[in-house]
Amino acid sequence: MSGPRIVDLIARKRDGGELTAAEIAAIVSPDVPDYQLAAFLMAVMFRGLTDAETTALLVAMVDSGERIDLSSLGGPVADKHSTGGVGDKTTLVVAPLVAACGLPVAKISGRGLGHTGGTLDKLESIPGFRVDLSTDELVAQVRDVGVAVVAQTTDLVPADKRLYALRDVTATVPSIPLIATSIMSKKIASGASRLVLDVKVGEGAFMPDLASARELSNAMMRLGVSVGLDTTCMLTTMDEPLGHAVGNTLEVQEAVATLEGRGPADLRELCVTAAELLVGDRAAVEQALESGTARERYAAWIRAQGGDPDAALELAPVVTEVAATSDGWVRRCHSRAVGDAAMRLGAGRARKDHDVDHAVGIVVSAKRGDRVQAGDPLARVYSRGPVNEDEIRACFAIAGESVEPEPVVLEVLRG
Amino acid sequence: MSGPRIVDLIARKRDGGELTAAEIAAIVSPDVPDYQLAAFLMAVMFRGLTDAETTALLVAMVDSGERIDLSSLGGPVADKHSTGGVGDKTTLVVAPLVAACGLPVAKISGRGLGHTGGTLDKLESIPGFRVDLSTDELVAQVRDVGVAVVAQTTDLVPADKRLYALRDVTATVPSIPLIATSIMSKKIASGASRLVLDVKVGEGAFMPDLASARELSNAMMRLGVSVGLDTTCMLTTMDEPLGHAVGNTLEVQEAVATLEGRGPADLRELCVTAAELLVGDRAAVEQALESGTARERYAAWIRAQGGDPDAALELAPVVTEVAATSDGWVRRCHSRAVGDAAMRLGAGRARKDHDVDHAVGIVVSAKRGDRVQAGDPLARVYSRGPVNEDEIRACFAIAGESVEPEPVVLEVLRG
Repeated sequence: MSGPRIVDLIARKRDGGELTAAEIAAIVSPDVPDYQLAAFLMAVMFRGLTDAETTALLVAMVDSGERIDLSSLGGPVADKHSTGGVGDKTTLVVAPLVAACGLPVAKISGRGLGHTGGTLDKLESIPGFRVDLSTDELVAQVRDVGVAVVAQTTDLVPADKRLYALRDVTATVPSIPLIATSIMSKKIASGASRLVLDVKVGEGAFMPDLASARELSNAMMRLGVSVGLDTTCMLTTMDEPLGHAVGNTLEVQEAVATLEGRGPADLRELCVTAAELLVGDRAAVEQALESGTARERYAAWIRAQGGDPDAALELAPVVTEVAATSDGWVRRCHSRAVGDAAMRLGAGRARKDHDVDHAVGIVVSAKRGDRVQAGDPLARVYSRGPVNEDEIRACFAIAGESVEPEPVVLEVLRG
Repeated sequence: MSGPRIVDLIARKRDGGELTAAEIAAIVSPDVPDYQLAAFLMAVMFRGLTDAETTALLVAMVDSGERIDLSSLGGPVADKHSTGGVGDKTTLVVAPLVAACGLPVAKISGRGLGHTGGTLDKLESIPGFRVDLSTDELVAQVRDVGVAVVAQTTDLVPADKRLYALRDVTATVPSIPLIATSIMSKKIASGASRLVLDVKVGEGAFMPDLASARELSNAMMRLGVSVGLDTTCMLTTMDEPLGHAVGNTLEVQEAVATLEGRGPADLRELCVTAAELLVGDRAAVEQALESGTARERYAAWIRAQGGDPDAALELAPVVTEVAATSDGWVRRCHSRAVGDAAMRLGAGRARKDHDVDHAVGIVVSAKRGDRVQAGDPLARVYSRGPVNEDEIRACFAIAGESVEPEPVVLEVLRG
């Protein structure tokens, strides 16, 4: 670049100054070596980014790669994103539910890592289900069926891939503007025009508390406004797993149960809220669930991507019932511990290059507020071999006194 | 390494925690990629290093390479270091002066960059002078003649080379613990046991003000104490060039004049103070200057390294007298401007791979407090071609009222 040298831009951020949009774009260009980008990111950890800088970073990231064009669909297209949690199968419910209300849904989804699962892994529990659609196939399917959930097949936001990999090894992950631009750049490049963000809060979540979750939500909504993407946020608890099922096939089954009106209350509430934020009409959302049109749309969607929506899905052969050893009330079913235990069973990945076992997992049957007596079931585990029951039991904190259940949706924020 | 991952160590420093000596050594090991080191250095810019961490960094840096062993000399050996300035030819005076007082001097010196000159460039103005002595030659010459000033020929502190190059491009240069360890690691690896540090303060210096110069000096003295290197500091002004001569051959001539008792007062004062801090006896230092023994030691030293101490040195052919265009008092002869002008004449390097022209330079004849009238000389320029007189004149700030001269040695700090 002509003009200021990169080192001078890093120094300005280090000293608390502001960079122009062109300067921000220069810093994240592929020509700048990793060590300069790393120093800049650490300066951002301390100094933050102004709203203008954050928007400039977002634009530079989106411009670094391709952008899916959904304009031929001729109207609004919805997308949802979750910051990741344990037992989070909401996309499998919300996508057909929203489509059943007449709003098309096009979502680029991802795979799981560590204690959190990924939507693509869950969908691939269904034999024959294809996730690698081309952009043309994606657009055609959304036009025909109203919903598509696919893997990333085009080069969306390569700058985010680079930034994320670098942040991961340089202790520069927990910065609100960097997290917000990472999420929003991918959503904008994915082409939808209406977005609901499910920001998880709590021990199994990226955001540990409500204050930081609110800050991230507001940053993402400001970014949405700045580029014309209609964005709302819901803050939902991740202290406990969402619903009961943790593990790929188990979660597909629970999503279908929810579409059939027999799912867990917390999962239903979260899905209905997410759909309402996209559709704008809670009654219509409830109606789509109760009438079965959402379930029908699910079947059409799965079929369109090559899967059999009614196939019996196989679970792992070893089934272990884990029971309480004392009386009391469940104070918490620790989401992080359940997620880690499911990962160790093979449901998730310790490393990106690992495979997942779709058939294993855990169904927790006791959550906060539930009364249990010694011998009552806490969880059922599906595995390939013997299970350490104490490890599963240790996921549950049992109190001597009764505790109140807590709501799953903590707050809704509209831009 | 086993134990904590590098990213966790960066995170701890980012969050204001302290690292152990082993952890500091792990971070600066050659295995750690530049991007992690860069992120760590930026975290240090914001969080600093504790005294224990700074000492650990120093030790890790020294241990990264070879260390010159001067123990066969059987007694204390002196070294001096300047943080760099304009017209700074003190080593050429102080080294033989200290040796003449009976204290051997062994100094690894460097080359100039930008507006500041380097001692090796100045010494190479003398035809035949060799700077690339082996360690054995260095030790033998110090034993025989009492003084040697040489280029670095062994692999001293490779970790500093890497750190310095990285800091230079990641806006992490101005950190006191990083500057202090960079300087002191090289001094410790050079093998001397007694050190005087000339910390320059002012516009042409690395440290802009007395407070930061004091902070750096104290950090370096603490490091000296921690490894048994007897270290004292002097804080000297660099608002104006030191002495009158700026340019390699001109500076050698001025150093010789000072050894012969006809040098500028500020240069003499600085050299005598530096020598006194090493020798511990001002009267002995004054005596070595006045008796001519320091001048004799200079001749023996230059001869030992292959040069002719009495050779007539050639200057560039175009001599331009620059005169004042108005009456007044010199408020300042701006060192940075004079240094830059000399560099543009060819006396210094804009880039590391440039050559220097030993014969060009500037002799400033008016400094702070001097009364000048229009037509009085301000400077004499030696060049290869026409000179922009206005550029030279612009180095001088002329006031309408009289101003007081200022001392060159601002403060002396003993460990």
